Amino acid sequence: MSSKAEKRAKFEHVFTVIRDELVDFFKSQNLPQDATEWFAKNLDYNVPGGKLNRGLSVVDSVEILKRRSLTDEEYFKSAVLGWCVELLQAFFLVSDDLMDSSITRRSQPCWYRIEEVGYIAVNDAFLLESAIYWLLKKHFRADPAYINLIELFHETSLQTEIGQLLDLITAPEDKVDLSKFSLKRTGEQDLYALASSILIPLGEYFQVQDDYLDFAGTPEQIGKIGTDIVDNKCSWCVNTALAVATPEQREVLDKNYGRKNAEAEKNVKEVFEAVGVRARYEEYEEKAYKRIIGLIETIPEGGSGKDGEVKLQRAVFKSFLDKIYKRQK
Amino acid sequence: MSSKAEKRAKFEHVFTVIRDELVDFFKSQNLPQDATEWFAKNLDYNVPGGKLNRGLSVVDSVEILKRRSLTDEEYFKSAVLGWCVELLQAFFLVSDDLMDSSITRRSQPCWYRIEEVGYIAVNDAFLLESAIYWLLKKHFRADPAYINLIELFHETSLQTEIGQLLDLITAPEDKVDLSKFSLKRTGEQDLYALASSILIPLGEYFQVQDDYLDFAGTPEQIGKIGTDIVDNKCSWCVNTALAVATPEQREVLDKNYGRKNAEAEKNVKEVFEAVGVRARYEEYEEKAYKRIIGLIETIPEGGSGKDGEVKLQRAVFKSFLDKIYKRQK
Repeated sequence: MSSKAEKRAKFEHVFTVIRDELVDFFKSQNLPQDATEWFAKNLDYNVPGGKLNRGLSVVDSVEILKRRSLTDEEYFKSAVLGWCVELLQAFFLVSDDLMDSSITRRSQPCWYRIEEVGYIAVNDAFLLESAIYWLLKKHFRADPAYINLIELFHETSLQTEIGQLLDLITAPEDKVDLSKFSLKRTGEQDLYALASSILIPLGEYFQVQDDYLDFAGTPEQIGKIGTDIVDNKCSWCVNTALAVATPEQREVLDKNYGRKNAEAEKNVKEVFEAVGVRARYEEYEEKAYKRIIGLIETIPEGGSGKDGEVKLQRAVFKSFLDKIYKRQK
Repeated sequence: MSSKAEKRAKFEHVFTVIRDELVDFFKSQNLPQDATEWFAKNLDYNVPGGKLNRGLSVVDSVEILKRRSLTDEEYFKSAVLGWCVELLQAFFLVSDDLMDSSITRRSQPCWYRIEEVGYIAVNDAFLLESAIYWLLKKHFRADPAYINLIELFHETSLQTEIGQLLDLITAPEDKVDLSKFSLKRTGEQDLYALASSILIPLGEYFQVQDDYLDFAGTPEQIGKIGTDIVDNKCSWCVNTALAVATPEQREVLDKNYGRKNAEAEKNVKEVFEAVGVRARYEEYEEKAYKRIIGLIETIPEGGSGKDGEVKLQRAVFKSFLDKIYKRQK
């Protein structure tokens, strides 16, 4: 199997193909050239520059499930699907950054902050979403899984939007009330239930990492400036601090969390350091890793089973976990 | 056939049913009560209060095509589809109003202008869109047309987003350059081609009406305050004025169009009156109406055709035209 960098380069090449397909479609609609150029820039700026964990996981999973390397056509279709997942992610990042008034993303200014863009970012996000279904129709229309793929993207979108609604109404920017937070708010035996029993803890671990990196990661690492404290976010860090704060520390948090000034942010960070958020995170990460490994090992291993029998494979879940364990970005 | 008001009331009743289905789904997701209430308010505020031309057209069309009144189940499914079209419209109105910084819509403040809402409106718009596919899955999953319906909504969304992109980049708020405008920018023989040959002129007529009413309609009539002049929109009115303006009038337009002040808007409106935009619109409307009637009459009439043969029906197109001819809102 090829190196991580080679895998990434191969996957990135497929982006250039679908990007050209989408831009050619725009050209075929007889739009003014500036509109087509705008759309191309929207794609190039917002889709390919991330860690690509989600997109690469699709290709890796298909390889593991097939237990062999893929034909060129299989690879291409898997990669298109991976890029559809990256497009979904881009759709949400572009719109969330505007809703959250974020500053940077993937080491560049958020799309809506580009001078000519502004609110047009909302429509540009819609176009990234629509690109998913255009690509699925182009490449999967004749595939028996076509309708299931569409429904899966619809369902994932709806669940993400429900999550974002919770996030937005739990942390209104101007009404800080830390008593609304709690660690519970941050996060079987058919195959779906078994998969869920591993993926939901994995997702929780990923979210806790995300919250921690917003506080502890440098802008060089995470490609943006963390704003969770200033934005009154219901983050793992503040919930951990709230759980162990002395009355004095609690007062500092109540008075400074979610305030739009650097001094207040600094005060909150000092409480985070004082209660040992860093050490607690490291402890959390080790425990989470071991627990998820344990969960993965509950997947029955062994023989290839009867013909047509669907089985879960430990390697799929292990490959997800390895993509995020001890990540710095 | 029942009166227009009865038809509307019957259609509106179906909204209460699907609204409850959607809210019950939220409840089933174990969300905090405030999230479910927020979503219910999003639906109630943004979906049912319009003219309902689009939604009612779906039901009317099914009745005309079946050449008989519908069974209760047929009516219900047609109405659900009609409400999906209204949800799509609501999705775009909620987000467009934010992008355009509009003030009022359907005689109430735009959703994003409600104090607690703000940018959350973007995510609320996404949820209105997702509601479409949730409803299609619930009510049409077993219907042979299911995948076609999904694709039709995807395609319509993409085309609308492309249109919105053109609108936004043709009329950047801070760079007024009237030379970018022209009447051309404002807009067979299989069945689709025949339908298109009527519906595209009909859509153009609808858009010209929309542009005209933004200028000439009172807020009481149109349920909002027209902002096209101030927003530098590539509207039929300004294009008509540009086409016939004297050099002096052209100068007034160049200096005052797209400026954010009431005096400039008044100057533009005076030019519109002076070049006779009102009389030109009335002339346009009569011509458009006659032309579209003529196009409708190109649809072959007569016998019910061979079994299974698909035919266009003049009454479907006539019912669309009647919904908009001489409309004041």
